[in-house]
Amino acid sequence: MDDASARGFLRRLFDAAIAEADPARVVPRWLPEPPKGRTIVVGAGKASAAMARAFEANWPGELKGLVVTRYGHAAPCKRIEIVEADHPVPDERGRDAARRILEMVRGLAEDDLVVALISGGASALLTAPAEGLTLADKQAVNRALLASGASIDEMNCLRKHLSAIKGGRLAAAAFPARVLTLLISDVPGDDPATIGSGPTVADPTSFADARAIVAKYGVVPPPAVAARLAAADDETPKPDDPRIARAETRLIATPQVSLMAAAAVARAEDVAPVILGDAIEGESREVARVFAGIARQTRRYGQPVPPPCVLLSGGETTVTMRGKGRGGRNSAFLLALAIALQGQAGTFAIAGDTDGVDGSEDNAGAILTPDTLARAAAKGVDAKAHLAGDDAYSFFSALGDLVVTGPTLTNVNDFRAIFVDQNHGGPATI
Amino acid sequence: MDDASARGFLRRLFDAAIAEADPARVVPRWLPEPPKGRTIVVGAGKASAAMARAFEANWPGELKGLVVTRYGHAAPCKRIEIVEADHPVPDERGRDAARRILEMVRGLAEDDLVVALISGGASALLTAPAEGLTLADKQAVNRALLASGASIDEMNCLRKHLSAIKGGRLAAAAFPARVLTLLISDVPGDDPATIGSGPTVADPTSFADARAIVAKYGVVPPPAVAARLAAADDETPKPDDPRIARAETRLIATPQVSLMAAAAVARAEDVAPVILGDAIEGESREVARVFAGIARQTRRYGQPVPPPCVLLSGGETTVTMRGKGRGGRNSAFLLALAIALQGQAGTFAIAGDTDGVDGSEDNAGAILTPDTLARAAAKGVDAKAHLAGDDAYSFFSALGDLVVTGPTLTNVNDFRAIFVDQNHGGPATI
Repeated sequence: MDDASARGFLRRLFDAAIAEADPARVVPRWLPEPPKGRTIVVGAGKASAAMARAFEANWPGELKGLVVTRYGHAAPCKRIEIVEADHPVPDERGRDAARRILEMVRGLAEDDLVVALISGGASALLTAPAEGLTLADKQAVNRALLASGASIDEMNCLRKHLSAIKGGRLAAAAFPARVLTLLISDVPGDDPATIGSGPTVADPTSFADARAIVAKYGVVPPPAVAARLAAADDETPKPDDPRIARAETRLIATPQVSLMAAAAVARAEDVAPVILGDAIEGESREVARVFAGIARQTRRYGQPVPPPCVLLSGGETTVTMRGKGRGGRNSAFLLALAIALQGQAGTFAIAGDTDGVDGSEDNAGAILTPDTLARAAAKGVDAKAHLAGDDAYSFFSALGDLVVTGPTLTNVNDFRAIFVDQNHGGPATI
Repeated sequence: MDDASARGFLRRLFDAAIAEADPARVVPRWLPEPPKGRTIVVGAGKASAAMARAFEANWPGELKGLVVTRYGHAAPCKRIEIVEADHPVPDERGRDAARRILEMVRGLAEDDLVVALISGGASALLTAPAEGLTLADKQAVNRALLASGASIDEMNCLRKHLSAIKGGRLAAAAFPARVLTLLISDVPGDDPATIGSGPTVADPTSFADARAIVAKYGVVPPPAVAARLAAADDETPKPDDPRIARAETRLIATPQVSLMAAAAVARAEDVAPVILGDAIEGESREVARVFAGIARQTRRYGQPVPPPCVLLSGGETTVTMRGKGRGGRNSAFLLALAIALQGQAGTFAIAGDTDGVDGSEDNAGAILTPDTLARAAAKGVDAKAHLAGDDAYSFFSALGDLVVTGPTLTNVNDFRAIFVDQNHGGPATI
């Protein structure tokens, strides 16, 4: 494949992964029977406005609702109010919307239905500080954890215990109404309790866990937070809590299903797909080194499969920040991959966030070609310095190799594809 | 497979990988025609005494020789003198042996043959400080680079430029004799110029490269080293150097061939082998997280292949030291893998150094079982604390799960196998 064909191929894989998680496609399949009573639609997340639009467009009955999404991720709705708020650091608009959602679901009857449309990003967007805490308290803890390299599970445990809505508290507030949650997963393992901090799902974690996480990362919480963690008198609903026992959840889009959609595209174009994992975690630059080793193996020995092949993976890598540059984890992964591959012939890659936003930039991701390093060197752009400075955005921007989709209105986490073409110059040297 | 069967299976894979690189098996296949003149056998490395023994046992003519190996890695030879020296930090015995080797190959004629038996570890074992440098000077730089996390390529570049024997200088000294090098590779990519710092191979690196590496890691070299790097007037032989143009090299054992031997054992036992790479690099604990992601995928979705399967890989991971505990990179990898897998059912692993020594301990590696974390917790052994303290040896020692082979007298670098058994409790939950 020539350079333009390989770029187009990789972009088709990425687009297929995103399309497979498009709310307009998947939400209609999962509509419940309309209830005898009222229908309330609530929700939060990067995909949730698009989910709301798909829901109301296909819902036969009355409804009212309120959904929070990230700035720029709104979709025009007629009956469900859409609020845009800040992400990943919570703001007042998210807080006010969360309070209004709690009010909306309180006092419902057993015949009423609450549909919760939850997707990645809901943790930050659906922010209702627990009694006695301010948004500033929660923001301080959130920022400290984000910068410390805490895992999403750890951040969510803390969030649930500082919140009036997360960790099943939303479902508890809606009791005795029926609660149905439609989920688009962006988390490794697709655990409903983790996606968006599980506002309608029983919480397996405790105040003791939250205190251990704060200690682990040496975070010094504001006094009100410390007092709440110590008091531990407002525990999240556990699985046997009658207020939450009836709540149902449905996974309507996942990283794995999107990877399988990309694999189908590859197969149709006679490229063998290898799905390495839908939940790959690790430091972005180290994950890149391991994947470079696998890509070398395909080229050198035809293992695990011979080229042309494409190594597909999802999940969420981490960037422990060292520099002050621009770029998210996908561009960082790709820059480290370029350095590790050292221009390996016939090898192209794409990495992007399926929500369309890598980190907090305007790109979804970037593309790597065999001559990425050579083109950078020709422009005087130092790959290793950009990696060390956490400045992968600037690196790929200088090459014109950013992938820009705009917000996709869905989110099944990261998508990576490393395409290894066959060797047109004869068999690979062993 | 039950616990004992799985442990036995993994050990058979590891043993097969080692056996495939056994000098007694491979050296006889590669004997050259005896020369008209004299035959001198020299060499260095963890496998080199065993290579020497195999060589002299199968050599039809006269010979004399001297080979340096690591303490504990000697093999009884009748005609070739074996010297044991320290590794990974060079000592006086290695230095004296290197000087004697240089003397032995000087003044030879065109009809004479020098056979160099080179294997991993030769860099540290074959130490001849360049004129004006002391062994202490080289040791200081070596130690600083080892601790800094420099790559083996980077360490070797520096070694070649501070040495009287590395980087092709041995072959240059033997000119005009024929030089044949038999290599057992322990380096990613199997580049003869890298294995044992390539004493008989033209060196592509320069004094400028060496200076850049010192600067990169902030190493402050002793004054004599700094002066030599600055003067740069004793460059290593380059590929067009007539003293080295005739030198030949043969790769007689490699990580890949050993992985393929393990794959054959797996296949014979109806377990599907997946060779991920013979040259996987990266921080041990991060490589473990990525491999855990792939192992989860096999179990959860049957990708890249369904269980029962075994993920095989070689190469060399790195431990950037943070604690003061005991353990090499293989036990560190395995401990991080245990933490990442969180007791995944049916999942076992072995990781070991094929030379029989993980780091500087008495074990080759260790074994992981699905209940590794549970057994550790029951004994009050804290997995995360041991990982943070670089104390994986103590962790697996406490569980009785060290793998001890003793020195194997060969070295094709690390070997990792993650065995994922089929789910005996019915299909995996998705």
